[in-house]
Amino acid sequence: MKRIVLLRHGQSAWNKENRFTGWTDVDLTDEGIAEAIRAGRVLRAEGFTFGKAYTSFLTRAIRTLGCILHEMDAAWIPVEKTWRLNEKHYGVLQGLDKSRTAAAYGEQQVRLWRRSYDIAPDPLPEEDPRNARFDPRYAEVPDAELPRTESLKQTIERILPYWQCVIFPSLRRYDSLLVVAHGNSLRGVIKHLKQLSDTEIVALNLPTAVPYVFEFDDDLRLQRDYYLGDPDEIRRRAEAVARQGRVR
Amino acid sequence: MKRIVLLRHGQSAWNKENRFTGWTDVDLTDEGIAEAIRAGRVLRAEGFTFGKAYTSFLTRAIRTLGCILHEMDAAWIPVEKTWRLNEKHYGVLQGLDKSRTAAAYGEQQVRLWRRSYDIAPDPLPEEDPRNARFDPRYAEVPDAELPRTESLKQTIERILPYWQCVIFPSLRRYDSLLVVAHGNSLRGVIKHLKQLSDTEIVALNLPTAVPYVFEFDDDLRLQRDYYLGDPDEIRRRAEAVARQGRVR
Repeated sequence: MKRIVLLRHGQSAWNKENRFTGWTDVDLTDEGIAEAIRAGRVLRAEGFTFGKAYTSFLTRAIRTLGCILHEMDAAWIPVEKTWRLNEKHYGVLQGLDKSRTAAAYGEQQVRLWRRSYDIAPDPLPEEDPRNARFDPRYAEVPDAELPRTESLKQTIERILPYWQCVIFPSLRRYDSLLVVAHGNSLRGVIKHLKQLSDTEIVALNLPTAVPYVFEFDDDLRLQRDYYLGDPDEIRRRAEAVARQGRVR
Repeated sequence: MKRIVLLRHGQSAWNKENRFTGWTDVDLTDEGIAEAIRAGRVLRAEGFTFGKAYTSFLTRAIRTLGCILHEMDAAWIPVEKTWRLNEKHYGVLQGLDKSRTAAAYGEQQVRLWRRSYDIAPDPLPEEDPRNARFDPRYAEVPDAELPRTESLKQTIERILPYWQCVIFPSLRRYDSLLVVAHGNSLRGVIKHLKQLSDTEIVALNLPTAVPYVFEFDDDLRLQRDYYLGDPDEIRRRAEAVARQGRVR
């Protein structure tokens, strides 16, 4: 049996402040670190070990992964970071408060931007300092591939090649992989693995820092998937995520 | 101009308890974490950036590197871990208290074991639970290459191929590399880079968590090397390391 565990990073400073983050590189809060440590303990208690881990170029995901591996005494396993696992790029919304954006544009519009499958916020202008082309960490990404905004559809389209060519094939070599990333980048992976429709994936609210286990047979066919942990706690977390776009 | 920065991990639990650590995977102390954070701040203040980092398979080095990169907002750079950068293997001494070992065997013998170039402590027995062959992290290392004890000479011999084939050539692609490892594994690197004699390298006491900068011209010829930070503080740290083998 082969396994891939997906995990969404713990609470970040802007999750807490209810702002659109996207590619902005904000750090975890203390609560986010505590969530990551708890996730590591659960994985350890359940006997999980990983041959390799993947994460994004964003500190909140990298640090969540670091806390988990440290808790599992597995800091030594290889870790591969890629911009392709980054969160959905939120264009001009990056940095704006979600509740205020809802008050200004209406809950419906914010819900569209957050949760529609193929509508992207307006792109960041070329000279906007938030534009990723000014960030040295993306220096090796061809400019034509570097987003200025993204719909969920576009997010999924830039993740899938990496998933199909790098992460998933490494399951032949390793029995078990850990992927720590973001709400929307993981939606792309889950849509692909579970063959969900555009509507189904938009409705899926992934709880933070809860290990989501996918089991495969030796021919790498998906057998089952389940969250690791207390079901009530997991539902509470998923609902908290869904509530974020409302006016407060 | 190309640069490689070498750095010895911060204080670990067994440094503090004055025990022989070697390949034992002990964690950093709070002071060790603070040292790593200070090193990251110094590197950042001096304008250093790194294209890639290398570290060992041991938590105290990996965590030191993690703290430094986090402090430099550079958690996203690629990190390669290798058992070849591990600390010298201390054989049967692993876990023993340095002062007590000195009282039992004499300061001279302990100094030989710690500081001679080619004398290794007795090897760990095959069935000793401390033997690295039982540790899954070394599963991919051929058994004949996996040490049961090491002299400094042997430590250097297992590091050099990796240095010559992997780390140093990557300086062609990246302008600047960071290598976080251990007192003795870094001795091997320094001996090679500075063409030091066996006697000279034994006398070198590397301070913990002080960035040691090596500058190269574009043909990768060494131009100069220097520690980054306050010279008095660096001397104090190197002396503290040298004192560890004495009876207290």
